[in-house]
Amino acid sequence: MPKRVVKVGVNGYGVIGKRVADAVKLQDDMELIGVADIAYDYRIKVASLKGYDVYASIPEKKKEMEAAGINVKGTLEDLLKEVDIIVDCTPKGVGAKNKALYEKYGKKAIFQGGEKHEVAGVSFVAQCNYEQAIGKNFVRVVSCNTTGLCRTLNAIKREFGIKRARAVLVRRGCDPWESSRQGPLNTVVPEVKIPSHQGPDAKTVMPDLNIITLACSVPVTLSHLHFVMVEPQKLPSRDEVIEVFNKAPRMRLFKASDGFDGLQAIIEYHRDIMRPRADMWEVAIWEESITIDNGEIYWIMQVHNEAIVIPENIDAIRAMTELELDGWKSIEKTDKSLGIAK
Amino acid sequence: MPKRVVKVGVNGYGVIGKRVADAVKLQDDMELIGVADIAYDYRIKVASLKGYDVYASIPEKKKEMEAAGINVKGTLEDLLKEVDIIVDCTPKGVGAKNKALYEKYGKKAIFQGGEKHEVAGVSFVAQCNYEQAIGKNFVRVVSCNTTGLCRTLNAIKREFGIKRARAVLVRRGCDPWESSRQGPLNTVVPEVKIPSHQGPDAKTVMPDLNIITLACSVPVTLSHLHFVMVEPQKLPSRDEVIEVFNKAPRMRLFKASDGFDGLQAIIEYHRDIMRPRADMWEVAIWEESITIDNGEIYWIMQVHNEAIVIPENIDAIRAMTELELDGWKSIEKTDKSLGIAK
Repeated sequence: MPKRVVKVGVNGYGVIGKRVADAVKLQDDMELIGVADIAYDYRIKVASLKGYDVYASIPEKKKEMEAAGINVKGTLEDLLKEVDIIVDCTPKGVGAKNKALYEKYGKKAIFQGGEKHEVAGVSFVAQCNYEQAIGKNFVRVVSCNTTGLCRTLNAIKREFGIKRARAVLVRRGCDPWESSRQGPLNTVVPEVKIPSHQGPDAKTVMPDLNIITLACSVPVTLSHLHFVMVEPQKLPSRDEVIEVFNKAPRMRLFKASDGFDGLQAIIEYHRDIMRPRADMWEVAIWEESITIDNGEIYWIMQVHNEAIVIPENIDAIRAMTELELDGWKSIEKTDKSLGIAK
Repeated sequence: MPKRVVKVGVNGYGVIGKRVADAVKLQDDMELIGVADIAYDYRIKVASLKGYDVYASIPEKKKEMEAAGINVKGTLEDLLKEVDIIVDCTPKGVGAKNKALYEKYGKKAIFQGGEKHEVAGVSFVAQCNYEQAIGKNFVRVVSCNTTGLCRTLNAIKREFGIKRARAVLVRRGCDPWESSRQGPLNTVVPEVKIPSHQGPDAKTVMPDLNIITLACSVPVTLSHLHFVMVEPQKLPSRDEVIEVFNKAPRMRLFKASDGFDGLQAIIEYHRDIMRPRADMWEVAIWEESITIDNGEIYWIMQVHNEAIVIPENIDAIRAMTELELDGWKSIEKTDKSLGIAK
């Protein structure tokens, strides 16, 4: 048994929040006190069904939620009184506004990648900078694409150094559960401002990384695809790159020759292995795509935007509350709890 | 009036063939003798409606075509007797098989990008290597993506030199008229073999170009999108890059701020300006995307796969039959006939 159990609340029970709540439940050094939201439809009703205590993120919403048959235990402020740390998973920009409330109650808070780096001061990817989050009051877990880039580039950088990294992101238009969000249909929408935000964002985690990113959106709901191009300081062999990816946590090689021909096949695999919600917490890298050409390393990878940041949120809780001072041990513990095997 | 009129036949009245036929009709130094195909549906019936003489590419198909109500003037061999040059627009691999027949009749032939470079020995993009096609019996017009890359990279290379070019291609899954071709639906399918074929293919036109390409297919029918990254020998300013693109033929800048937010908007513009079939013969480059970063030039561009090679086919006819020895004059003449304005 761990010497201490940290009490966790989740504010915002959406794509990330509901997954963070489920992951917290799996940790033996954490207790999920409750989840807060403003919704009163099937999404938050499932939280009740699961036995999670539900709170109203905005006091005025409490009555509406109760009218919809949800048993609301209190408001966000009531939840904050009970927790050691709150994981803010509210929509982009709302987290920043919530910060004052978390400070008022003297509670630690994790923000997501939709918030600016400055909201927390520490932008976090467990295997890159766990130690920077230790004991901190505010930490920002970076967005899905930045997480995927940082994990893989950090592994390469540690072994071979990076002179210059370039990545082109083919982004999903909307999430599978969404109907009304404007996503592209039968077109590709480029981000004409270069660099796209993910490159600069990766530098909030890896400040000395020389990187540029370019991006577009496509009519796809099943996660993102990245083309990554790296000029290393020391050129490895292809086998050495494969070895690095095989060793580093939270990334996994898939072979096209094994039927993994596109995003959909790798998602289907995660349905078949009974991952909750078919979630892929790892970065998937196509083994055949790993190429050394003209002094550069190339690979193609898949980032499951709904799922990839979940283990980082768990590790951030552990670092901030000093449950574990060794990042690699926290990563191992989190991955074991989720069932991530290398 | 031109001193000489070249007699042209088109074999294969598909996506490219029908457009080549229409473009030949617009030239005052060319005469369209007829088109050959094996189809007997609406596609070839429209050729008859337009008054084009229709021939059977395979003798055995003549009766079927006639039974479908098509007035078939003869076989491909009959057509070959009448022409100076044949533009082979048959499916990938068929052109190579047809070559012997063209040789038997001593006729010059143009092949498309689906054929290997070796079938013709000269791979052609008008503004890159017009002079290499002069007087030749066999020339291959490279594929749409290679044409778009060669046009833009050649313009940049001529002014600033190129140390290394990288391009990521987001390819349309199938053409707008197709229903049964397997295209991706709600997924992205990467080409896990790096480089994708377009990089090596560009070297058949520009042998000393140091280039790598990566590619994927997406559920989109409206043309391709390219992310291009160039390390030049001499770093230009952004304005100098814009000037190069503005001056070079068959490329055009579009501003996202003018409503051109994705592939579909630029296609819609070409519908609105009454281009035949909404064809875009030029490469479209997003002006805002032109970026100088860390010693490199970046841009995002659109390649209309159905249309971009049509002017090259016309110029190839002119070079091979020595109607015009100056490539820039041929380009100007072709562009004027089609209504391409800079």
